[in-house]
Amino acid sequence: MDTFFAPASLAVYGLSSKAHNTPRIIVDNCLRWGFRGRLFGINPATEETDVGGVRVYRSATDLPVIPDLAVLLIPARYVPQAVEDCGRAGIKRLAIQAGGFNESSEEGKNLATQLLAAAGRFGIRFVGPNGLTLADTASGLCLPFVPSFPVKRGGFSLITQSGGLGLFLWNLLEGESVGLAKFASIGNKLDLDECDFLEYLGADPATRVIGLYLESIGNGRRLVELAQRIDKPVIVYKSNTTTAGNRAAMSHTASLGNDEAIIKTAFERAGIIRIDHFRDFVTTAKAFDLPPMRGKRIMAMSPAGGLGVAMADLCEHQGFTFADPGPTFYQELAEVANAGIIKLHNPLDMGDIYQIDKYPQIFSHVLASDQVDGAIFASQWPRMPEGGTDVFTAMFNTDVSLAMSGATRSTNKPLVLVLYGDAPTLAAMKQQGPIPVFDGPEEAVLALHRQMTFHARKAVGPLQPDPADSNLQSATVRDWVQQHIGVIGEEALELLTLCGITSPATAIARSAEEAGEIAARIGFPVVLKVVSPDAVHKTEAGGVLIGIGSPEEAIQGFARIRANLECFRPGARLEGVRVTSMAPDGHDLFIGGLQDPAFGPVVFFGSGGIHVELFQDVERVLCPSSRTEIRSKLERLKIWRILAGLRGQQPIDTEPFIRTIGTIAQLLADFPEIVELDINPVRLLANGEILALDARMRILEV
Amino acid sequence: MDTFFAPASLAVYGLSSKAHNTPRIIVDNCLRWGFRGRLFGINPATEETDVGGVRVYRSATDLPVIPDLAVLLIPARYVPQAVEDCGRAGIKRLAIQAGGFNESSEEGKNLATQLLAAAGRFGIRFVGPNGLTLADTASGLCLPFVPSFPVKRGGFSLITQSGGLGLFLWNLLEGESVGLAKFASIGNKLDLDECDFLEYLGADPATRVIGLYLESIGNGRRLVELAQRIDKPVIVYKSNTTTAGNRAAMSHTASLGNDEAIIKTAFERAGIIRIDHFRDFVTTAKAFDLPPMRGKRIMAMSPAGGLGVAMADLCEHQGFTFADPGPTFYQELAEVANAGIIKLHNPLDMGDIYQIDKYPQIFSHVLASDQVDGAIFASQWPRMPEGGTDVFTAMFNTDVSLAMSGATRSTNKPLVLVLYGDAPTLAAMKQQGPIPVFDGPEEAVLALHRQMTFHARKAVGPLQPDPADSNLQSATVRDWVQQHIGVIGEEALELLTLCGITSPATAIARSAEEAGEIAARIGFPVVLKVVSPDAVHKTEAGGVLIGIGSPEEAIQGFARIRANLECFRPGARLEGVRVTSMAPDGHDLFIGGLQDPAFGPVVFFGSGGIHVELFQDVERVLCPSSRTEIRSKLERLKIWRILAGLRGQQPIDTEPFIRTIGTIAQLLADFPEIVELDINPVRLLANGEILALDARMRILEV
Repeated sequence: MDTFFAPASLAVYGLSSKAHNTPRIIVDNCLRWGFRGRLFGINPATEETDVGGVRVYRSATDLPVIPDLAVLLIPARYVPQAVEDCGRAGIKRLAIQAGGFNESSEEGKNLATQLLAAAGRFGIRFVGPNGLTLADTASGLCLPFVPSFPVKRGGFSLITQSGGLGLFLWNLLEGESVGLAKFASIGNKLDLDECDFLEYLGADPATRVIGLYLESIGNGRRLVELAQRIDKPVIVYKSNTTTAGNRAAMSHTASLGNDEAIIKTAFERAGIIRIDHFRDFVTTAKAFDLPPMRGKRIMAMSPAGGLGVAMADLCEHQGFTFADPGPTFYQELAEVANAGIIKLHNPLDMGDIYQIDKYPQIFSHVLASDQVDGAIFASQWPRMPEGGTDVFTAMFNTDVSLAMSGATRSTNKPLVLVLYGDAPTLAAMKQQGPIPVFDGPEEAVLALHRQMTFHARKAVGPLQPDPADSNLQSATVRDWVQQHIGVIGEEALELLTLCGITSPATAIARSAEEAGEIAARIGFPVVLKVVSPDAVHKTEAGGVLIGIGSPEEAIQGFARIRANLECFRPGARLEGVRVTSMAPDGHDLFIGGLQDPAFGPVVFFGSGGIHVELFQDVERVLCPSSRTEIRSKLERLKIWRILAGLRGQQPIDTEPFIRTIGTIAQLLADFPEIVELDINPVRLLANGEILALDARMRILEV
Repeated sequence: MDTFFAPASLAVYGLSSKAHNTPRIIVDNCLRWGFRGRLFGINPATEETDVGGVRVYRSATDLPVIPDLAVLLIPARYVPQAVEDCGRAGIKRLAIQAGGFNESSEEGKNLATQLLAAAGRFGIRFVGPNGLTLADTASGLCLPFVPSFPVKRGGFSLITQSGGLGLFLWNLLEGESVGLAKFASIGNKLDLDECDFLEYLGADPATRVIGLYLESIGNGRRLVELAQRIDKPVIVYKSNTTTAGNRAAMSHTASLGNDEAIIKTAFERAGIIRIDHFRDFVTTAKAFDLPPMRGKRIMAMSPAGGLGVAMADLCEHQGFTFADPGPTFYQELAEVANAGIIKLHNPLDMGDIYQIDKYPQIFSHVLASDQVDGAIFASQWPRMPEGGTDVFTAMFNTDVSLAMSGATRSTNKPLVLVLYGDAPTLAAMKQQGPIPVFDGPEEAVLALHRQMTFHARKAVGPLQPDPADSNLQSATVRDWVQQHIGVIGEEALELLTLCGITSPATAIARSAEEAGEIAARIGFPVVLKVVSPDAVHKTEAGGVLIGIGSPEEAIQGFARIRANLECFRPGARLEGVRVTSMAPDGHDLFIGGLQDPAFGPVVFFGSGGIHVELFQDVERVLCPSSRTEIRSKLERLKIWRILAGLRGQQPIDTEPFIRTIGTIAQLLADFPEIVELDINPVRLLANGEILALDARMRILEV
């Protein structure tokens, strides 16, 4: 992959000196960016031998060397043929920029198939088509075909499914303390995809922060695993989250949408930072230029009291707590403070601390306190009349960023600078200052929170599935699954029993007498349910009787169900009557599961009954999961407050429920052929015991 | 109030030529801003007679004229005395900037009382204390005591409870197409408050958009009424919404918090635009520089397909629909389009329309379509190598803002311009361009949505309470309320009955026989409940029997309750047994109400039982309300889907429930002495009928 970004030689297809020749822009860009590899042109349709000094050949096979990389910005219909040409010449890496493939038309889809076939034949790997492909500020490679100046070099690398948006980001980076390392515009990602580039950038020494703009996620499972493994912040802006977005994305990069709730679950597992504002690529990257925030205790400071109030709101919303650096700190501060009319606490209103030369001391004290994990300072640098000797001119015209940087470096804690003010002054500070400058407290607090969360996640060890679930690999479970292909109803409870999940005792009676015997054996009260291929909706057929309290009632019940069925549909086949122990009262929840096309097996669980539909009280985990993860999700459910003992009620032991979810998660991970599963309701009894009351699953043939 | 902003003469307290004299800054600012009124200094503690050319007097009574306005930036302890001085001199308007009053200490609270008393004696009105007070770009008045250059003149006026944040906004306005009209930093608002200034700015010809930064809302009811009446956008940034924010706000401007849910309800009623990002004052104001968006049909356009996808998501999230300008439009466009490989639809990917000279035509076509209410165009203006003859240089280096402005003017529809790019170029466009430039699609789509919603709201007529509720003014209702002071339990149902809200038939039986008679009269089944001052928790005392089906059972039930009570607490007084008709099954909801200190009577309603606590399925209206408003809120409840007929169930007629809420809203508006009210549950029967099953209220003595 290194060779993709820093090829020793590059061939540019379609190069000519005709007006509006876009491949020419690629050559110019590379020259402007200081690319030092060899450059060649390939153009079967020209008689020219050089374009602006670059030699042009009719075919790749005519080149004096085998170039490390060729870039194809030619109409789609010529691409398969050009790939053949490259293949014959021994070129192994292509950047295919042309659009007009699977994103556009039926004809385009054919071309995409041909492209893949040709590349396959010659063992060629490629990025694209339909993307601006690659750029690298270190090697000077700049393939995007829009005339551009060199972009500031830095540690931010971007993988993008939209070239245009990618270039917009170059603009945004320009004015900030963040620079670009590598750029990959992957377009339709027919060969190399976001995961391939993510894996590479994860190990790339030039890359410190990785951004991804995605319209679709193909191998979500791999994305999660990579992001978990990579020790750098991975920031994702995922569009195509709505019907309208999907319509646009289909024609843009042939991207299907993903399930938003599952993406959220997966990104949380992966520690991926999701942004929903494009500029936050830069804002968030800036926060990672600061030392890690290792705890939640923040100190907010501003000479504007109102900003203190606003920051307090923002910090509390983000879950920060307010540090208390202790009475000594405030005493010292009071001696520094001028008019003494403002109360000193956190947030710290510095409105009457007019001695700007005391600021460094305050910053240093705040950060040095072992009660403080990080701090934020918000002020302004307005354009002010010159020559002022008043306190405000000193206060608002003094650059405190060096002192802030000093305090940051000596404590290795973050101190975030937010500045309003004169735009040109701020622009210069952003470019040259020793610490990042944020435009407002809203983005600063959010970015700091993302940074803190990222570091906290990285400090947690990897996921530990429950070892108890290893018994799911038993031959009995495997046999059952193999013998039950298709849609399975209540019978699915059998599989759960094999997995150690209990359901009420049940058996099928073939005669009225047997119904009485079974009922007596499993204990009263029982429920009777018709078993008949001709009564899909049992209740409609008068086939459900509840609260059966004695053997006699069971015997009569069997007869009644038989009579009802005959009445409902004359000649209907009665295969028997299911006798099931009635479950005690409890809380009805549900556990469901599916195999997501992108993220693989997912289990979801939450409040049962009408709550599922109305209140969406549901949480999800990727499979397999761990008890810790399941518990943390369970505690987010609204129903949790009831389980934990609302209004002085006895709390319920939720461990068995957690274990059950973990078992189901393992089951779906071990048996991808179980494509759908729904246990509903799962009754949670007062003593914590779990009863699966009904279940349904769909199993594919493997 | 005009005189506050444009005084013909201004006296500045505490002026001296000493180093660090802050009143001196006020004089300098006024001179720099071109203030043309007369200027005087007042300083009892100096021998100087002029400071920088401005005459200084010992006392206000020494001045040659009575100034229209005096500004007091002197220590709080001298303020009451200075106010006396001004009063004696006949000065009627003050701007009090000093801090150290009720926001700071007990001593400060005393000073605040003295200040109010002194002002009251002389009929003085004042703004402050503890604020930067006033500025006006038209009159050149600039009282804020931070050295500043004149701020660009424009139509945005700000009322702020934080002077510092206010000044930050000056900085933000500087670089934008939005300029400042008037500025009022109201501090602790001991006399003039946000409502006084709002009312004034509502009628001020120089003001087109009004912004408020608030830490507390005093007279919320008046704020709502003013905002409803004013025909200009009112944008509010309300901080102090959290515990931490409140701690900070108390010491900043002595501000108590308000109930967030009620603020939301009130702002919606008022058509107030709430922002939660400080910069959105400017972003939102920019959207109001465009013609009104009069419908939801938007067209999104960009040469970057990815941005089209992202904009599609954003538009859908904000509730816009995607306009279809029709096949003719797309045919014409296809002829313009270059490579023809990009599908044409909405969002419009202009990625292969390389002829930038076609853009004006496209903009004009889009806006002229009667299928389109507004449009957004997002692109970039990067720094590009000079002299390029390629299509991109033409495309990205051509200013389309004039053409956009033309299309906007000729159709009177909004066309929003979003540009990424070279910062200095964009800054210049923002200052000089004919239309506002937005920094990203996120803020542009949000601001356009706010603009659209504002205009839609202004098009709706005023609130119409239900005339049927006028009977609440009857003597019977009034008598009942006056005779029931304190906390009222189940008896509160009587008041509801007087208001036309039914509850199950009920009466108290004094003997077993009477219980049988009453039960027979009101119809079976009935519930029996003990009435005893010694059995607060009726169930514990064995005092509740349900499902009583015959007169005999009622007679036996009475006896059983008597026996249970004696057993529960020997010697307990039995005052009788309440016999109540058992309500049929239905959906249990609730209606509650209170008198909010800021916003007056509020009614809330939603899912009853455990749902209230767990799922917060609650909506609110200010009282009185209208059927339309109540219905629109009801439809937002999660439980609405059930009432409307979930899964093919018969929908329930919700009109009686809506009417009941309206009645309660009128009751709370008519009787402010009812400070709390809770009807829970309110049972909604299948036929739509309403039964109040239990109620509780608290009535104050008037």
